[in-house]
Formats: sequence, structure tokens, C-alpha cells
Amino acid sequence: MIYLDHAATSNPKPAQVVEAMTHYISQGCANPGRASHPLANDASRLTFEARERLIDFFSADENAQVVFTGNITESLNLALKGLLRPDDQVLVSSMEHNAMMRPLRQLEQDGIIVTVIPCCPETGLINVADIAAAITPKTTLVAINHASNTFGTIQPIDDIGRLCRQQQCLFLVDTAQTAGVVPIDMESACIDLLAFTGHKGLLGPMGIGGLIIGHRLHDTAITPLITGGTGSNSELEFQPDFLPDALESGTPNLPGIAGLNAGVRWLQEKSVESVSLHEQKLTRQLLKGLREIPGVILYGPDDTQPRVGVVSFVINNKDNGEVDEQLAYEYGIYCRTGLHCAPAAHKTLGTFPSGTIRLSVGAFTTSEQIEQVIAAIRQLASDTH
Amino acid sequence: MIYLDHAATSNPKPAQVVEAMTHYISQGCANPGRASHPLANDASRLTFEARERLIDFFSADENAQVVFTGNITESLNLALKGLLRPDDQVLVSSMEHNAMMRPLRQLEQDGIIVTVIPCCPETGLINVADIAAAITPKTTLVAINHASNTFGTIQPIDDIGRLCRQQQCLFLVDTAQTAGVVPIDMESACIDLLAFTGHKGLLGPMGIGGLIIGHRLHDTAITPLITGGTGSNSELEFQPDFLPDALESGTPNLPGIAGLNAGVRWLQEKSVESVSLHEQKLTRQLLKGLREIPGVILYGPDDTQPRVGVVSFVINNKDNGEVDEQLAYEYGIYCRTGLHCAPAAHKTLGTFPSGTIRLSVGAFTTSEQIEQVIAAIRQLASDTH
Repeated sequence: MIYLDHAATSNPKPAQVVEAMTHYISQGCANPGRASHPLANDASRLTFEARERLIDFFSADENAQVVFTGNITESLNLALKGLLRPDDQVLVSSMEHNAMMRPLRQLEQDGIIVTVIPCCPETGLINVADIAAAITPKTTLVAINHASNTFGTIQPIDDIGRLCRQQQCLFLVDTAQTAGVVPIDMESACIDLLAFTGHKGLLGPMGIGGLIIGHRLHDTAITPLITGGTGSNSELEFQPDFLPDALESGTPNLPGIAGLNAGVRWLQEKSVESVSLHEQKLTRQLLKGLREIPGVILYGPDDTQPRVGVVSFVINNKDNGEVDEQLAYEYGIYCRTGLHCAPAAHKTLGTFPSGTIRLSVGAFTTSEQIEQVIAAIRQLASDTH
Repeated sequence: MIYLDHAATSNPKPAQVVEAMTHYISQGCANPGRASHPLANDASRLTFEARERLIDFFSADENAQVVFTGNITESLNLALKGLLRPDDQVLVSSMEHNAMMRPLRQLEQDGIIVTVIPCCPETGLINVADIAAAITPKTTLVAINHASNTFGTIQPIDDIGRLCRQQQCLFLVDTAQTAGVVPIDMESACIDLLAFTGHKGLLGPMGIGGLIIGHRLHDTAITPLITGGTGSNSELEFQPDFLPDALESGTPNLPGIAGLNAGVRWLQEKSVESVSLHEQKLTRQLLKGLREIPGVILYGPDDTQPRVGVVSFVINNKDNGEVDEQLAYEYGIYCRTGLHCAPAAHKTLGTFPSGTIRLSVGAFTTSEQIEQVIAAIRQLASDTH
């Protein structure tokens, strides 16, 4: 098996992630912050350690708060629905995933104004001047997909963050495709809300994600989507008004937090920079190889532009689904075909509604695998010629 | 260690649960319904199997839908916030957990009418006639905690369900303390919405729960709290209008689903009835032993009444927190002290705000452990005499 579906979920995970999770599942985990016995205290310590590690990993302000969620879709819903009020304007790029667009289209029905900034039809890059021009007195939030899950385009979040800070808008970044793969400095990029998922570049398991809330937001700025038991203020039938409890109700996913903590620790030991260089090298190799195959059409930025290891292509005169199936069942190459839950991005680059075949590399992908993938696609493309 | 904090989370899990999760973490899991390669198909099959198993386990109608969530708190929030509209009346018992009361207090601010039915101050039991008397033309929902997480009281859901069906109200049951421990027949109890959690009696891991939606509710009856990518209708920026996709966005917790599936399979093999008998026997033994200790005050129903293995007590003239700490650190007995996120229940039985010490048994608790616990509490109680 050559797994090139890392943009959906990374696979395999580092051995430490498997060990940490297995430990908490087999040795037993207790409910953090709800009891005082040693197992519960251990759970509280682990949760605290994971929060501190994420603060450090994303260079967040020490007063920032980490709120755990089930996945980044929940993180984005929490930020958007918790923050935006009728008549607020939010600016997004035309490269967003449906995890951003579907909650926004829902919010539009409540009178929130959603403005989509068109991106370059060749590269998917946003022009920061276009964001600046779209800001009005009603603009409370700029929300941006850091890297496209379809074409790999990395948006210039440092420049966008600076603009937001100048214009006193909040800045939300969807790091689904970049956390663990591209170094992110929450403070220097002026990010107020950083949504992350555990199971992609952070190399943790499915089922855990989060939202890091910067110090410019007060503890009750975001209305909780979910309220309930927190182990705190148990005498009250009202939600605690302090973070993270205000936004974290019910039993947390402790094995998930353990796995995420171990994944981020692995990345800290390796360094995101080295993972980034590795993936960039493989991406260049993949783009170069595919570019030389007659009949292959590549979409998105080339390798001179900032991009992650997500590569979209089609083969002339061949059905994407058929190519996908041949790759999987004849060559053992696993990828993903279609619209990738990002119709806006496909419309931007002109690949809607037929979509593309997406290959996405990971921390454990090898150069030999990329060679095999190029050879397989060369063979498939030559069938049509 | 004698673990008697099963009402918080069950520990240990059956070996099959650990194996199933470890398999999906170490062998790699893919994103179900998002790709067509073998790993993704395997994920889809597992998710389908788990849904079917839960439908069978709770004797739900074959047209019922299982929606996965991160925990039962999310399940209850989804049902309550997704269903109730301003001027709707909801009836609850005075024994609810904050997972029910906190979302309801939040909804009250939007004009939802919340009516709390007082329960018996001795046993915590609700009188079905009191529910019948409280129903008005505005009553759209009756929402009941099946068993108290503090005192073990089991409510007569069959009678309540019949009443709801007669009166054309929907019926939501919080099975946090009963799923896997008390046989539940969703159809015969006329349950329209069954909220469950994976990590207690169902013997799965933390991080997975769900809501089973009966066939009387149409697919769009519940407005989603969270919207986003579903792997379906990817060409649209609007949420799919069919279940379960309408209410399940973003990458699911696949290792969690695998663990839950294995936990429920273990229960199906053993039978809930046998687990129930085992826990009843231990509970009777515990109640009998504690009743004989001078200075111990027991709360809640006695063993002639329907109850689960959750036992609340205090020791005369002793601080609960101190007893809890002595139990944990001198005797290795892990339990939980305080208000258990259920201030309403403690108010009902007169133990607010000081709370109680709670012992809760599980499927793997032994009679010998219960003897040791009784001996330890006897010793602690005698210190004060």
C-alpha cells in the first residue's frame, strides 16, 4: 500500500502515539477534574500537559486558551457561531472547505453578512489588497483556510493577520492542512482564533481537535455551542464563565488527547521545519514527475510558490473515478477523487463540478513511493494515448 | 486499586475494546465515506456495522437513525437545541444532570419554557401522574434522566413513554447511567430520542457518544449544531438534508467507533441482563454492608426499588472530601465526592450543597472488592465514634 490520502487523515501514526493511546485505553483512564483519586489526577495532568504543549507548539501567548473539540469542523463552528452576531460581516477566501462555508451559509440565514474574496484562478492565492478593500465597519472577522485541502495553496497569513490587527478585525485561521506541516506562529501572525485538528499533520488520532483562543478575546466572547457538566461550578445550572470550561462540556476524549499530545511531542522532537522540508522535497518530485507525463493536467500553484504536499490532477480523456479505482486496486495507491468537500476551491480553479484526483503526502511518505506513483500514473495516462 | 467510579467512566474495558482500538490506531484508519480506497471502505463498513449494532442493541425501529457525537452532553445539546423553539415547553425531572439542565437554562433565555417536575425526596422517583398533570398544549418534549448519576434511582421510562405517545409529546431519554446496565427497548418504551455515551456502561472509550433518532422524527426535524463536510453533496455549501449526514460533520472518531462497537458486541455476547444481575447483586451487598455501619447515612432508593449500582452516602461528623481522600490514598478505593454535576438531584434529596460520597460499581467489580470497601468505610466511620 502506498498511502497518499494524508490530507484526509495521516497514516501511519508515530509509534509513540499508538503507545500513549493504548496505555490510556488498557490501563484505564478517568474523568479529569471530576474526582480526586490518582487516575483522575493523572487525567487532569495529561490534559494540562497537552494544552501547554499546544500553546508552545503554535507559539501562542501564554494567556491563550486551548479548547478541545471533536474535530476541526466543530472548532470552526464554535468560533463562527459563537462569535458572529446578526449584521456582523465576515470575510473569507474563495478557497474555503465546507467546514467553513456550511456554517457560514447557515449563519447567513440569521443575518450575518458573508463576503467571499475571489482568489487567483491559477494558483488559488488570495490578494491581501482585496481583503483590505473588502473590509467595512461591519467586518468583525476574517476567516481563512491556511492551505487548500485540494490544491495545496498556502495563503499569506502573516500579511492577513497584520492587516486584521490594523483594522481591528479578529482573525480566524483554519490550519487543517498546515498544523504540523508548516511552522505557525500564532502571535507573530496575529491570529486570534486558531482551529486545528489532531488527526492530520499533528499525527494524533481521529476524534480530537481544538480551538486556540488568543488573549484579545475575553472568556465569554464565544457563546458555547454545547453546555453541560464541566466538573466546575457544579452547584450552578449555568455554564461557567471562564475558559476552557465555558466551552468544554461533558467527558473529554482522553485517549484522543493522549494521542494528540504524543503526536505533537514527536513533531517537537523532529521539528516541523524538517517535516516541512521533507514534504516539500517529495512534492517537488511529484510535481516534476507528473508534469512530464503527456495527458496529465496539474492544477494549483507550482513548486516555486508556497504550497503543501497536496497535488490535484486529472488525466485527459479519462474518468477521475476510474483512475482512482485503478490506482487503488491495481497499484495499491490510495488517494481521493472528487470535490474534496471544497466546491468553492474547485470553482475558483475551474475544476467544478468534475473535480480532481488528489495525491497528498505525509511525514512518512518516501521518495521511492513517489517514484512508484509517478510510474503508475504514467502507465495509466499512456493507456489513453 | 478498587475502582468504584464507574458512573464517571468504566474501567477497565473488555480486552476486545482495547484490541479493536489498537488495531485502528496502529494499522491505520481512513476517513469513511470520503474516498473509495480499501482503508476508506473498511472505515465505512465499521461505521455502518456500529450503527446497525446500536439499533439492534437498543431495540430501535429499523428506520431509526444513529448519529455519532463526542459524548452524551453533545447528544443532549443536539436534541434540545436542535428541536426546541421559542414558546415550546419541555418537562424534565428534578433529578437531571447538568448535561440536561445547562442547555435548558441556556434555552430558557430564548423563550423556551422549562418545567421541572419535583421527584420524591426519599427515593428521587418521579410520579408519572405529575408529568401527566404538567403537560399543556405547549409541551413538545419530555426529557428524562433514566437513572440518577448520584443516587441510582431508575425512572419508569415505559410508563412515561406511553404517556408521551398518548399526549403526542416527543420523549428524550438520557441513558448515561443505564445503557449497557439496564435493558432498554426504545420501541416498547416509546422513546423518540435516545442519548447515549460510549465510555460508561457500553464499555467503549471516552470521546464517542450518540443520539438515536426514532422514525417519528423526519430527517430535518433537528437543526444541526455543527455543519460542514460530510463526504456527501460535496457540490453544495448547504448541509445535506438526510440522516445521519445532516447531523454528522467533519471526520468522525473512528477509533472511538471501533471501541464502542467492540464494547457493545461484548455486552451482546454476555447479555445486558447478566451484567444487570451482577451489578444488582453487588449493589445489594454494598447497601446491606453500609446500612449496618453506625454513622453512615445512605441516600436514595433502597434495594427493593429499581436502581443502578450508584450509591451515595456520608459519614456523620466527617468531611466528605477527607473520607474520599482517605479511601483513595489509604485504601486504594477510587470514588467521587461532591455534587456530581447534578445540583438538582442533590437539592431533591436534601444533600445540597455539601454533596455526598459516591460509590459506583461496574461489570468487572467483584464481591470481594465490595467486602473490602465496606470494611474500609466501617473503619473510617468508627474513627468518629
